[in-house]
Amino acid sequence: MMSDPPDRVTKARAAYHVIQDAMCAALAGIDGGSFSVDRWARSGGGGGESRVLEGDGSIERAAALHSDVWGETPDRLSDTMAVGSTNFRATGVSVIVHPRNPHAPTLHANLRYFELDDGRSWFGGGADLTPYYLYEEDATHFHRILREVCERHPIADYPHWKRSCDEYFRLPHRGEARGIGGIFFDHITDPTMHEYQVDLGSALIDAYVPILERRSDTPFGADQEEWHLIRRGRYAEFNLVWDRGTRFGLETAGRTESILSSLPPRARWVYRHAPPADTPEAELLEFLSGEPREW
Amino acid sequence: MMSDPPDRVTKARAAYHVIQDAMCAALAGIDGGSFSVDRWARSGGGGGESRVLEGDGSIERAAALHSDVWGETPDRLSDTMAVGSTNFRATGVSVIVHPRNPHAPTLHANLRYFELDDGRSWFGGGADLTPYYLYEEDATHFHRILREVCERHPIADYPHWKRSCDEYFRLPHRGEARGIGGIFFDHITDPTMHEYQVDLGSALIDAYVPILERRSDTPFGADQEEWHLIRRGRYAEFNLVWDRGTRFGLETAGRTESILSSLPPRARWVYRHAPPADTPEAELLEFLSGEPREW
Repeated sequence: MMSDPPDRVTKARAAYHVIQDAMCAALAGIDGGSFSVDRWARSGGGGGESRVLEGDGSIERAAALHSDVWGETPDRLSDTMAVGSTNFRATGVSVIVHPRNPHAPTLHANLRYFELDDGRSWFGGGADLTPYYLYEEDATHFHRILREVCERHPIADYPHWKRSCDEYFRLPHRGEARGIGGIFFDHITDPTMHEYQVDLGSALIDAYVPILERRSDTPFGADQEEWHLIRRGRYAEFNLVWDRGTRFGLETAGRTESILSSLPPRARWVYRHAPPADTPEAELLEFLSGEPREW
Repeated sequence: MMSDPPDRVTKARAAYHVIQDAMCAALAGIDGGSFSVDRWARSGGGGGESRVLEGDGSIERAAALHSDVWGETPDRLSDTMAVGSTNFRATGVSVIVHPRNPHAPTLHANLRYFELDDGRSWFGGGADLTPYYLYEEDATHFHRILREVCERHPIADYPHWKRSCDEYFRLPHRGEARGIGGIFFDHITDPTMHEYQVDLGSALIDAYVPILERRSDTPFGADQEEWHLIRRGRYAEFNLVWDRGTRFGLETAGRTESILSSLPPRARWVYRHAPPADTPEAELLEFLSGEPREW
């Protein structure tokens, strides 16, 4: 047991709370609704605070999840990282936003910090965007903000992390990317990652909120909603079949309701659905099925 | 390559086609719509015929899938069964029915036969029912038909296979059974399993169709539909997270559209949804969270 938490965990945990607060405030401000707050305890040690907004506003569901857990190191922790360790401590924050309007993209972001009792520690995380219609200016804006954060921190490697994100957020069984990517990093031991994560966390609002605002009033009809739901089915497929964090959580008796709050609130599956040629729907699909783009 | 198929594969394949035909005829008769037919080829050898009904009738989606595939034995085939084998041949039929009415349960059934070129061969399969409202007479009827088929064949072991089904169709991350169970068997080498499968295949109509018919006209409102969609979300979770066949198919580049035709046509996720006490919804949940029942 590490009941007296080392300084770095305390710092990370506090920074993640600030990010959680700021994202909730920004999202609730746009939506007009409010987040419900659930505190939960983990039987093996620690716990978390899950905040979820599910109202009638422009956001159909948003989740801002904070956790700070410790205990015996699970065998499966991060592949082979657990070898030689008996106890671990992990803290993290995740934000997932599923807007109601099909023209507004889904945001996913996660920042996390791990420590093992053999002295090893590392940072992981990232942020990515999943649009249902391809607005190049949105993708360019999102990537520009992420790249600028990276440029302010010597430890950050935007080109590498952008590529890792493209590789990770893929549905091999569909031959499709999940969205327009972002950044993804893991197992970064350098302690200056703390300052990078603080900066990234606060930049998430700039990266996403203006996009959510400018797309939330776009008119849409039943056809666009159907497309939205079909693409959200793909999002559910990625999270349930391929996402390592989701699978690890479900297979190791994590808190199911928090883990699955990343799923879309509604989804649709249609056998062999294919959008008509030369439509915005076909354009998105063509992009997702092709090589990743530099934004 | 086994271009001259041994007799047992030919028999199984033909029997599965008869089952596919009979189920499609029975389901189309009730629904009023018709199945579309897709024939597909597998790059490694063989192929299949997927029939799907997605109309406006009492069935929201039904899939009747036939396959007959062969080639190099995948490393991951049925855990350690592949050891010592270079080539395999597998044929099977699956039927999944997602009715529109929340009072009508979902049917899943699968019959399959495997052969390895080292001489080993085995049968697998089963049938199970997933209701959204618990009608005891439906569960009793379904299990009675399955038990009676087993009683006609010395190789069949209803109590064992019923228990295997309860164990397999569970969502550990929810602490819930998927539905009211049925039977589940695998790795049965006895050749008289052929006659058992033929009998089971034809009994599926008796086991399911009367239930579908008597529940499809039950009135329902928005609350029942919401519950239906939330429970269908659980069905999607089981198939994508836990079902070995689905995961094996997606991870070994099977035909995605056929594999995922088992998913519900629509699904819904609500954070920490819990039905009010003393409602039919709470009654189902209580049953699914408890010990399996003998029907």
